[in-house]
Amino acid sequence: MSGCPYFEKRHLLFKNKPPTAEEEEDASQAGVNKASKGGIIYGEYLQLDKIVSAQVLQSELKGNKIHDEHLFIVTHQAYELWFKQILWELDSVRHIFITGCVRDERNMLKVNNRIHRIVMIFKLLVDQFSVLETMTALDFFDFREYLAPASGFQSLQFRILENKIGVPDNLRVPYNRRHYRDNFKGHESEILLATEQEPTLLKLVEEWLERTPGLEVDGFNFWERFEINIFDGLNKEKEKIEAMEDSEDKEEMMLELIKQKELFTSLFDEKRHDHLLSKGERRLSYKALQGALMIYFYREEPRFQVPFQLLTSLMDIDTLMTKWRYNHVCMVHRMIGSKAGTGGSSGYHYLRSTVSDRYKVFVDLFNLATFLVPRHWVPKLNPNIHKFLYMAECCDSSYCSSEDSD
Amino acid sequence: MSGCPYFEKRHLLFKNKPPTAEEEEDASQAGVNKASKGGIIYGEYLQLDKIVSAQVLQSELKGNKIHDEHLFIVTHQAYELWFKQILWELDSVRHIFITGCVRDERNMLKVNNRIHRIVMIFKLLVDQFSVLETMTALDFFDFREYLAPASGFQSLQFRILENKIGVPDNLRVPYNRRHYRDNFKGHESEILLATEQEPTLLKLVEEWLERTPGLEVDGFNFWERFEINIFDGLNKEKEKIEAMEDSEDKEEMMLELIKQKELFTSLFDEKRHDHLLSKGERRLSYKALQGALMIYFYREEPRFQVPFQLLTSLMDIDTLMTKWRYNHVCMVHRMIGSKAGTGGSSGYHYLRSTVSDRYKVFVDLFNLATFLVPRHWVPKLNPNIHKFLYMAECCDSSYCSSEDSD
Amino acid sequence: MSGCPYFEKRHLLFKNKPPTAEEEEDASQAGVNKASKGGIIYGEYLQLDKIVSAQVLQSELKGNKIHDEHLFIVTHQAYELWFKQILWELDSVRHIFITGCVRDERNMLKVNNRIHRIVMIFKLLVDQFSVLETMTALDFFDFREYLAPASGFQSLQFRILENKIGVPDNLRVPYNRRHYRDNFKGHESEILLATEQEPTLLKLVEEWLERTPGLEVDGFNFWERFEINIFDGLNKEKEKIEAMEDSEDKEEMMLELIKQKELFTSLFDEKRHDHLLSKGERRLSYKALQGALMIYFYREEPRFQVPFQLLTSLMDIDTLMTKWRYNHVCMVHRMIGSKAGTGGSSGYHYLRSTVSDRYKVFVDLFNLATFLVPRHWVPKLNPNIHKFLYMAECCDSSYCSSEDSD
Amino acid sequence: MSGCPYFEKRHLLFKNKPPTAEEEEDASQAGVNKASKGGIIYGEYLQLDKIVSAQVLQSELKGNKIHDEHLFIVTHQAYELWFKQILWELDSVRHIFITGCVRDERNMLKVNNRIHRIVMIFKLLVDQFSVLETMTALDFFDFREYLAPASGFQSLQFRILENKIGVPDNLRVPYNRRHYRDNFKGHESEILLATEQEPTLLKLVEEWLERTPGLEVDGFNFWERFEINIFDGLNKEKEKIEAMEDSEDKEEMMLELIKQKELFTSLFDEKRHDHLLSKGERRLSYKALQGALMIYFYREEPRFQVPFQLLTSLMDIDTLMTKWRYNHVCMVHRMIGSKAGTGGSSGYHYLRSTVSDRYKVFVDLFNLATFLVPRHWVPKLNPNIHKFLYMAECCDSSYCSSEDSD
Repeated sequence: MSGCPYFEKRHLLFKNKPPTAEEEEDASQAGVNKASKGGIIYGEYLQLDKIVSAQVLQSELKGNKIHDEHLFIVTHQAYELWFKQILWELDSVRHIFITGCVRDERNMLKVNNRIHRIVMIFKLLVDQFSVLETMTALDFFDFREYLAPASGFQSLQFRILENKIGVPDNLRVPYNRRHYRDNFKGHESEILLATEQEPTLLKLVEEWLERTPGLEVDGFNFWERFEINIFDGLNKEKEKIEAMEDSEDKEEMMLELIKQKELFTSLFDEKRHDHLLSKGERRLSYKALQGALMIYFYREEPRFQVPFQLLTSLMDIDTLMTKWRYNHVCMVHRMIGSKAGTGGSSGYHYLRSTVSDRYKVFVDLFNLATFLVPRHWVPKLNPNIHKFLYMAECCDSSYCSSEDSD
Repeated sequence: MSGCPYFEKRHLLFKNKPPTAEEEEDASQAGVNKASKGGIIYGEYLQLDKIVSAQVLQSELKGNKIHDEHLFIVTHQAYELWFKQILWELDSVRHIFITGCVRDERNMLKVNNRIHRIVMIFKLLVDQFSVLETMTALDFFDFREYLAPASGFQSLQFRILENKIGVPDNLRVPYNRRHYRDNFKGHESEILLATEQEPTLLKLVEEWLERTPGLEVDGFNFWERFEINIFDGLNKEKEKIEAMEDSEDKEEMMLELIKQKELFTSLFDEKRHDHLLSKGERRLSYKALQGALMIYFYREEPRFQVPFQLLTSLMDIDTLMTKWRYNHVCMVHRMIGSKAGTGGSSGYHYLRSTVSDRYKVFVDLFNLATFLVPRHWVPKLNPNIHKFLYMAECCDSSYCSSEDSD
Repeated sequence: MSGCPYFEKRHLLFKNKPPTAEEEEDASQAGVNKASKGGIIYGEYLQLDKIVSAQVLQSELKGNKIHDEHLFIVTHQAYELWFKQILWELDSVRHIFITGCVRDERNMLKVNNRIHRIVMIFKLLVDQFSVLETMTALDFFDFREYLAPASGFQSLQFRILENKIGVPDNLRVPYNRRHYRDNFKGHESEILLATEQEPTLLKLVEEWLERTPGLEVDGFNFWERFEINIFDGLNKEKEKIEAMEDSEDKEEMMLELIKQKELFTSLFDEKRHDHLLSKGERRLSYKALQGALMIYFYREEPRFQVPFQLLTSLMDIDTLMTKWRYNHVCMVHRMIGSKAGTGGSSGYHYLRSTVSDRYKVFVDLFNLATFLVPRHWVPKLNPNIHKFLYMAECCDSSYCSSEDSD
Repeated sequence: MSGCPYFEKRHLLFKNKPPTAEEEEDASQAGVNKASKGGIIYGEYLQLDKIVSAQVLQSELKGNKIHDEHLFIVTHQAYELWFKQILWELDSVRHIFITGCVRDERNMLKVNNRIHRIVMIFKLLVDQFSVLETMTALDFFDFREYLAPASGFQSLQFRILENKIGVPDNLRVPYNRRHYRDNFKGHESEILLATEQEPTLLKLVEEWLERTPGLEVDGFNFWERFEINIFDGLNKEKEKIEAMEDSEDKEEMMLELIKQKELFTSLFDEKRHDHLLSKGERRLSYKALQGALMIYFYREEPRFQVPFQLLTSLMDIDTLMTKWRYNHVCMVHRMIGSKAGTGGSSGYHYLRSTVSDRYKVFVDLFNLATFLVPRHWVPKLNPNIHKFLYMAECCDSSYCSSEDSD
């Protein structure tokens, strides 16, 4: 940006890495080189020759230059730039999980910040529609024909992004009656297939949640205690209601109680969970769900504060992706109307169908809100005994603490 | 964007330009080509190979890859992409003014929309800081040294933008005690000099304002009538005050009246105007100022509705550029502190000094608020006589109505 | 806001209304009163005693004060404040239409600005969710029980707003299996019924569109010319395709052509239009649709520039209301999960169902994008003959130009 | 908001507080009451009768109703509503600090979330200007006179907010040449004086920073180690430079080194710190500054992750308040111009002068960026020895964990 002096002379002095023996030797010479008047300047650093020369208007090539096509190109390029940044953050976070470095809890700040950065980028991307919306349907119509058969559906980075977060192949809405991958060329299709086979953010978070301290059956045993408390609580409620005089209210409350009992019975039914899992209605393993609920209830305990923030940010990503999809739908409605000329499924309706909970990867985290209970039903912790919530783990390997861990 | 079917088959049928005779002949063949399965696809169209391969981390080249440098690069590239779009819009608007096509009032919608689009882009750019702000001073410190001597000051596009809007050379704050152009390499410095010599948006708007219908001395003669009304009004106020019983209030009001008289006397003093102009405290010619004030007061008249919107949007640009500068200052404060290591003027203080009314190109439009008067002091229009406000001009030249006019 | 000197002494001098004879008489005295040290101060002016004392926490009343309930109350009060402002603008615009003052085209700026202000308020309201989203599901759970049976569904102002814009009674999704009005108390229900019977913004815009200059059969006769041009154009396309050599492409193009012909045949079929109207799939009369399309195609003509902006802003309102609904759904998903405890339709699903094109009042304006054609198919205007696009109408009645017209 | 079912029947069953013996007794009866069809409804809950009846137009009272005054009132009321919410959060955070509950690190999440909520509210308030900016200077002029002598300067809540965060009395810019408090009436002036005497957020954060674990001289002794490392590092740099061949670069680097040495010498000079403190150029005690720097460098250690976030959010508040002030300045410039009619300091210039680092309460946190050093100069921690960064403190008093602690 203009006028920001990234560099100030003092930096000539500092090197961020401790010098090796060899470097120490070379000191004087290195000094000379670093301070040489050369060095990189702004435009080269950012490769602006590439960036600002990449706007070629198809309408101009076809001899009918349409002013607004430039906006169309720049907007999409800005989206793709940011998609690249999101992938950069996402890959670094996945790497921390995959290498096991997440076990060193010092890395939680990094994980959390990078996920939060993805959130902030998506917020920007949602707002960014306001710029493209300055183009009217009539302006768009003037150059639309020249774009055939290009389609935003073909954004490789966006599909990779969905795959790496964890949108499952089998829950995707078909596009033009074809599997989503079949809309890509051979090479790109292979890349997509490969990303489907990598561990998704969903999967990695699941594994991490399964290790939530406090779930151990021979330890705090949260899950069993929680089950006992809930059904004790419900039974006490039942007794209270039964003691009431007969009335419409009493009846209503009793009906409600029965439903609550069913709800919680279902929560502790592992088979039912696995059934919902197989249908895609749940996405996290039974154990991971327990971990998430535990983090919810004990979020104020020192070791759970940052994990709780992380779960919140994951929901933010889902929410913002879905808002992005919805803003996209709204823009398309305005640009091309809701009815395609004819029989074929219109772009509008395809997009509309992707604004769905099927595309919410962390939908289980939202739905846990169904299983909240009063604070006094949550199993009590005693800080004198349950030290695990106060003592973070670290593993002092240079591997995980070094920047290479991204 | 994902899933937006830019193209639908019907467009095979439509051609946005009426066919030439030759084209008619080639019809069948053209048809074949157009529908050929080839055509451009998304990634090629947007030249994504260039866009998403342009992120080379200096820290990585120097053997110390720092994760956050990627964000730094992408953010700046996104800024430059949008600067290019702003220049695209700005040049098209300036072209409409330079060619005289603005006299065909059908072009006012185009002018207005494109200026408004610049406003919307600047809004986005102000918001975009929220993403870079996810990087802390400590993260930045880790790779800052590798950027030397690159500096955001070197953004050529931003300086061109300032020049084309109309930031005057002589009001610029020096950077590193040097003229702003001397911070650029020879080739770039020449480009900057050239843009200084082109007609600025300010200049073009000034000329257009000078032609505001209603200013003609042998016609409606707004300016003279306005002057008469004001001093009549002030005199009547004076009489009222004099008729009051003596009191502190009376004295205060009389003092205030005298000041008002001075203020308006100054408004009608062309020499004083030219003096302020020479000091950079005013920027528009005396005549243009009259036109602007006329548009303000008669903004509801049909021919002035869109011109009034235009003046508002020009203030929006000024305001948003200054907010952009201020947000930039805030970010730099956080990144490198307010004190440079040493004697030299710090980046923070340089930037701080550019958040100034000196950089507001259309400052006169803001300051007109000082000269508002009650509605009944404004010279009355009679639609039966003053037809000029109801009849727009057009010039039916294909030159101006064609898309080439951008 | 802090430090803004609304008032400066000079205003003691000015009165915005020309004085009546009586007032002239009273001049000295009035002067005294106005300048009296009394006058209103900030807190009284804004009635802050009411505003900042209206936060009573139910949880506190029930002896279990929950911190976050305060945020919940303030956020909803802020929404209601802005709803009131929207109604204020909406009523003033409707008044201009109802009184016929819209025929004086000087009032178009006012109409346009006020509709645009509604747009800006809705943008703020969409963003405002980000504040309430700092409350987690668990924080909400802590005081949710105390709110029964209050429900956001009961926002009277929001329902009035929907009615006055033109959400039709019969397209509303039932809530709790009941007509929406039956969820309100008697008095409120009557207010709602009354607002249903007032002319809606949709209806008023429809009437205005029906009067679009250029539609007259004995004048420019846009509609007939347009129909002729389209079918001429399509026939020429047909001939071109028939001249092609046989191929898969040729077949495809011919199929496409047939569909296009059907599409446009339907556009000119008034009976079909009325059928769609009766089903709620179209909302504007046949004549109004013609006016809208005319404004679309001739948007650059002086008299149509501001009307075109108005149509765009009406779509903005629809889009933003629907985004507001969608953001609301997202928040509710996070707060209470997607599954209600029991059989009854959950709040989440009710809200989800209102994010629908049924609730888009100006849906026809979006769908006109389906009927765009190449510029050279649009009937040509000749400014020498078709003066009507250059001469605005006014009606110099003091009634319409005075502020009372709001 | 519309359609959000705050309440679902299941809540009839749950009570968030464990029942007392007495309550148990009353169970049946309580049941009846709770489920009674009565209960509070939306409009009553939000006291909408007060909220939406508090818009009284002065212009209307004076017989000259001006449409836009309603927007002016509603916008300011919305600001005041949100100021109240900010004060609510601020007081709760200050309470946690004042009572010492902050020592129980479980409360850090609460502190952090509430400070973050203030950040989100300020973001909204910055955006909120976009609505008021739909009013032009001319619209404002029409009713400005009726507001005298009300002024936004008189916003009591905003001044209280500044005081409670820690804007010091003696650094305030005088308004109308008077002490800020003298612009308020007696009663309000007393409230302001009282808030000046309460512990500010700045003071409370300072005390908390002074207790940062690791600062103890007989423990990790960060400060002494840090000083040693820095001067060791600088000396090594010096040797390297001296070993270089004579050149311009060498000279430059040596000069730079000397400046760096001065800079860091000043950092470790307590007297100089106290001198800057007395002038208002620094705001935190010497010890607190050490704590802040320690949190900066060891931000990834488990116990410092949330404290680091907190420091970042405190800078966010400063930044956003200053952006709010700047946006306010921009709006005032547009509304009333930069020049008051006459000699007196104009509102514009007063506001301009408050956009200053003097009003940044946590300015020291920004300026710490000046004292960053390469990672290998930071004293090394050994997790096997320095356990304190992994073991959070709690104090299991019901006092601090209960909701009463807000």
